[in-house]
Amino acid sequence: MAQYPEVIEDIIRALTILPGVGRKTAERYVFHLLKQPAGTIEQLSAKLLQARASVVTCSVCYRFTQIDPCSICSDPLRDGTTICVVAETTSVLAIEQTGNYSGRYHVLGGYVDQLSGVGPGQLRIAELQERVKSGSMHEIILALNADVPGETTAMYVQQAVAEVAPTVKVTRLARGLPAGSEIEFADDITLGDALRDRRTI
Amino acid sequence: MAQYPEVIEDIIRALTILPGVGRKTAERYVFHLLKQPAGTIEQLSAKLLQARASVVTCSVCYRFTQIDPCSICSDPLRDGTTICVVAETTSVLAIEQTGNYSGRYHVLGGYVDQLSGVGPGQLRIAELQERVKSGSMHEIILALNADVPGETTAMYVQQAVAEVAPTVKVTRLARGLPAGSEIEFADDITLGDALRDRRTI
Repeated sequence: MAQYPEVIEDIIRALTILPGVGRKTAERYVFHLLKQPAGTIEQLSAKLLQARASVVTCSVCYRFTQIDPCSICSDPLRDGTTICVVAETTSVLAIEQTGNYSGRYHVLGGYVDQLSGVGPGQLRIAELQERVKSGSMHEIILALNADVPGETTAMYVQQAVAEVAPTVKVTRLARGLPAGSEIEFADDITLGDALRDRRTI
Repeated sequence: MAQYPEVIEDIIRALTILPGVGRKTAERYVFHLLKQPAGTIEQLSAKLLQARASVVTCSVCYRFTQIDPCSICSDPLRDGTTICVVAETTSVLAIEQTGNYSGRYHVLGGYVDQLSGVGPGQLRIAELQERVKSGSMHEIILALNADVPGETTAMYVQQAVAEVAPTVKVTRLARGLPAGSEIEFADDITLGDALRDRRTI
């Protein structure tokens, strides 16, 4: 099989660790970068290293931050009796942008996923149990993907919370029609969820 | 709008220069990288810098290579009277992998694309004219995408070759049904091309 020079094959292989990036996409990235003006790759590398060096995980909620504890965990105005459990730091920003939430967060660090070999032990579920035990919690909101890994993870987290605090309310995000969508184009499961969870107006 | 720490925003913005990568994808890449074991980002940066430092463009065909002139341009067994004109270095490897071509290459460096503001002057068309003038060429094969930028680029290259060498044959890749495809699922244009370019068996 024809191959690129070793140094190029090397960076192509290295880039395939990115989520959703296969060999073809990595090739495109590499050749695009090589076509950029001098200094672009140097700047990109410097920024990556700088991010790595100055970003830490918050010791309370485990999201990526530059100060520990993070701005949300150290904000006295936020409701400490509600924890929104998310898989990744990116979900925190998405929820913050809605402006509909003023509680705290807990970042699990991923999803339970048998296919990728990630078990519940590799997520920060025990850390969540500690937080639930140590505070006077009112509600744990599970903000996880509406797919199989999301459902599986939710089940483990719900059980773990019930173990240490059976009286704490555990909720999950609503399922239904996404905003702006048309019923004709909704899939069966979404429409079924929307029917089951219908609300009085 | 809620934002990540500045150092993260910075690397997110830097990654959106990659082709097809928007803010959401860049976010995923950054947080995926931050979750990797220590040293991963350092290795990735080192490999990028190494690739940048050791890769040059071949002074004959303009593809990315580690030695100049590249292995194809300096191979005396390859047919010097045929040049396959491609847009990017990645196309060279794709064509080499077919095992059906033993001529030389010429990398234009992109496509004429009005929408992205790339004109024919930004591609290596004048360099192709020089090569065509200086050698005894037999055929120029245009191996460009079967889309509007591909067609536009082909038109400019064909005219440029005709200007300096009106007798040199200019061909383009065949259009038709892709291997393994079914007629029922072919689009109108593909099927039209396949009919028009039908071959005697």
